[in-house]
Amino acid sequence: MSEPTIKEIREAAERIKPFSHRTAVLSCETLNKLTGSELFFKCENFQKAGAFKIRGATNAIFSLSDEEAERGIATHSSGNHAAAVALAAQWRGVKAYVVMPENAPDVKRAAVAGYGAQIIPCKPTLQAREEGLAEVVEGTGATFIHAYNNHRVIAGQGTCALELCEEIEGLDVVMAPVGGGGLISGTAIAVSAVLDGGKVIGAEPEMADDAYQSLRAGKIIPIKNPDTIADGLRTMLGELTFPIIRKYVEKIVTVSEDAIIEAMRLIWERMKIIVEPSAAVPLGALLSKRKEIAGKRIGIILSGGNVDLTMLPWNR
Amino acid sequence: MSEPTIKEIREAAERIKPFSHRTAVLSCETLNKLTGSELFFKCENFQKAGAFKIRGATNAIFSLSDEEAERGIATHSSGNHAAAVALAAQWRGVKAYVVMPENAPDVKRAAVAGYGAQIIPCKPTLQAREEGLAEVVEGTGATFIHAYNNHRVIAGQGTCALELCEEIEGLDVVMAPVGGGGLISGTAIAVSAVLDGGKVIGAEPEMADDAYQSLRAGKIIPIKNPDTIADGLRTMLGELTFPIIRKYVEKIVTVSEDAIIEAMRLIWERMKIIVEPSAAVPLGALLSKRKEIAGKRIGIILSGGNVDLTMLPWNR
Repeated sequence: MSEPTIKEIREAAERIKPFSHRTAVLSCETLNKLTGSELFFKCENFQKAGAFKIRGATNAIFSLSDEEAERGIATHSSGNHAAAVALAAQWRGVKAYVVMPENAPDVKRAAVAGYGAQIIPCKPTLQAREEGLAEVVEGTGATFIHAYNNHRVIAGQGTCALELCEEIEGLDVVMAPVGGGGLISGTAIAVSAVLDGGKVIGAEPEMADDAYQSLRAGKIIPIKNPDTIADGLRTMLGELTFPIIRKYVEKIVTVSEDAIIEAMRLIWERMKIIVEPSAAVPLGALLSKRKEIAGKRIGIILSGGNVDLTMLPWNR
Repeated sequence: MSEPTIKEIREAAERIKPFSHRTAVLSCETLNKLTGSELFFKCENFQKAGAFKIRGATNAIFSLSDEEAERGIATHSSGNHAAAVALAAQWRGVKAYVVMPENAPDVKRAAVAGYGAQIIPCKPTLQAREEGLAEVVEGTGATFIHAYNNHRVIAGQGTCALELCEEIEGLDVVMAPVGGGGLISGTAIAVSAVLDGGKVIGAEPEMADDAYQSLRAGKIIPIKNPDTIADGLRTMLGELTFPIIRKYVEKIVTVSEDAIIEAMRLIWERMKIIVEPSAAVPLGALLSKRKEIAGKRIGIILSGGNVDLTMLPWNR
């Protein structure tokens, strides 16, 4: 599998335009002062289904031939990708099968069901998810859309940084959180193509630092069952995303759980917007390691805003 | 005291422009569907100091002569007006004295102190607040800026609806919450001047329905110590705001506590933005009494976003 090109990202942008929001870019004087930088927050928490994931899912699903689409779409996910696939399949008018672990939060299951997808419950292990998926694909002929290890999903996620660089000129750095690597890969390809001299920095939880370790080791180092509060970042790099990250990403900064929670709370209190823990990881990196990156114009992708309002980290 | 004119509101808009944000107007498909209307939310939760109050305070404080300003500014408030006066005084470089009840939340006291105002604590009664204020004014010669019963404060608050009507064409209705009546008065004057055929509807908690009762009775009917969750709306109409509301406001809709909390949660969950309970009252009115106002283009002023994140109503 080759890496997506900027041309494919631009095509994705056209393909998803009728469905996704061109999300707002916000700034905040207090956070600029706190970090000693000029920050531009790309608000994917305002995106359809509450996260950037709809970009990749829509690009992948609307790239299928009619024949492929008719047989339906399948994925396994406990989070935002599940909802995004369900919604994009609904837009295209095709069947979606989502293998979800039994312990997925009710609110996420309800969202997926609400978009009309068929949920196939499974035990909460990667093996059970993959086996459940294989059964569905074999039984239905549905096309598997992986959450990040998918060429067109990565191209779709790249549209977010493309919009950000179009809207805010002269960024020095673009930062995004790193989970499976779909967002940071698309971001890195887009930024390297359109932002002269611009760097891409990934941020990930210390407790799920597989990207940091993998870059050092030169091969994918899996982390078993990472327990970070940033639930969107508990996945590990894939065979497609790892080489892209190696090639284009300047560095990966790791962030403690406390710094993630502090950054999330600052965004809520100062910007008056709701972001999920994963989205706060880049700001957490800036706050805890500010010396390295101060004085820059920094774009930050706020990846999503899906959070259980009755389970906030500062109320635990 | 005469009512402010649209000319004075336009002058206020020029006066406060260098300091305040021209806040975003957001929409939300889910809330449009739920209410059967087309809603446009003017996000004063994104405003400086987190609420529309900075508009009136800045207009009043920057309208003072240098001689007046030198003697300082005084007010009594336990909430957003206190912070707004403190911040606007800091911008003008003059002293602010804020009489605050002893039981005001720590976070609000910290905000006022953070903007450099001198806090004068008092017992938590209106009488104690007024006596504390009278002492300060007598001792310092400071100018009293009332939270709403002030000509220039009302003109300043009117700038919010002016921006909204400039940005979104053809609104049928503009809604705002009603506490002391400063916001709804300024809104009503602005809308009646610039929005042909546009109506203004106020929304207030059932538990603090002094505006509703006062309009019916034709005179100000005070409510003693209203206990609504909408802490910004526990004040009662003033002699300056009541006649403006009588003259320009189409009607006042009252909203139950449950409907306020439901509306607040919907705004958080669906729009991914943080608003305080008072700001959710107009949407609460639309959701609980939707038949009366369905099918319209409705502007809603989200008055503020200052809320204690450890004390959310759905976690009690």
